[in-house]
Amino acid sequence: MTLKLVVLYTQPDDPAAFDEHYLGVHMPLVHKIPGLERTETSKFAVALDGGEQTYYRMTELYFADQAAMDAAFGSPEGGATAQDYGQIAPPGSRMFIAASD
Amino acid sequence: MTLKLVVLYTQPDDPAAFDEHYLGVHMPLVHKIPGLERTETSKFAVALDGGEQTYYRMTELYFADQAAMDAAFGSPEGGATAQDYGQIAPPGSRMFIAASD
Repeated sequence: MTLKLVVLYTQPDDPAAFDEHYLGVHMPLVHKIPGLERTETSKFAVALDGGEQTYYRMTELYFADQAAMDAAFGSPEGGATAQDYGQIAPPGSRMFIAASD
Repeated sequence: MTLKLVVLYTQPDDPAAFDEHYLGVHMPLVHKIPGLERTETSKFAVALDGGEQTYYRMTELYFADQAAMDAAFGSPEGGATAQDYGQIAPPGSRMFIAASD
């Protein structure tokens, strides 16, 4: 079992500008976070349930355990990433911790 | 780039019964789907944004490309899985297709 931080970004006003910041600035900050085992970024394409296209992107950050996640969040690199998240996350974006089975 | 099916299950009335069905019946059906490259299941633990604990579980099913996903959805095993999904997914559960960067 690993722990992951799951971020669900809602639709940005300007998707191209969002992607430029996200891929060019935000993810490079993420990759500096100590103890990060793996990242996965994806872009939602279709709401298969016929509902609203609520989310634009998902980021998953994998950590070995709670201690590693806590240390990452408490690090200067984690703080810089959180600050940048505040700059780019559209209103209604969600952030969860999930445990992989 | 791979394609994934992302399922976000909302909170079930009876989490223990949900898990029993999900892990004991639903995921075994999923694993029979042809062309499935990888699955990841996770359980949400904390809403870090301080918001509602909207989702209970997430399932991610990875496929090589659109053709593989289409074939999987059109297969008898895909149909059996979709039927079982209708049995267990709490109201408001979401299903998306996402492209991994």
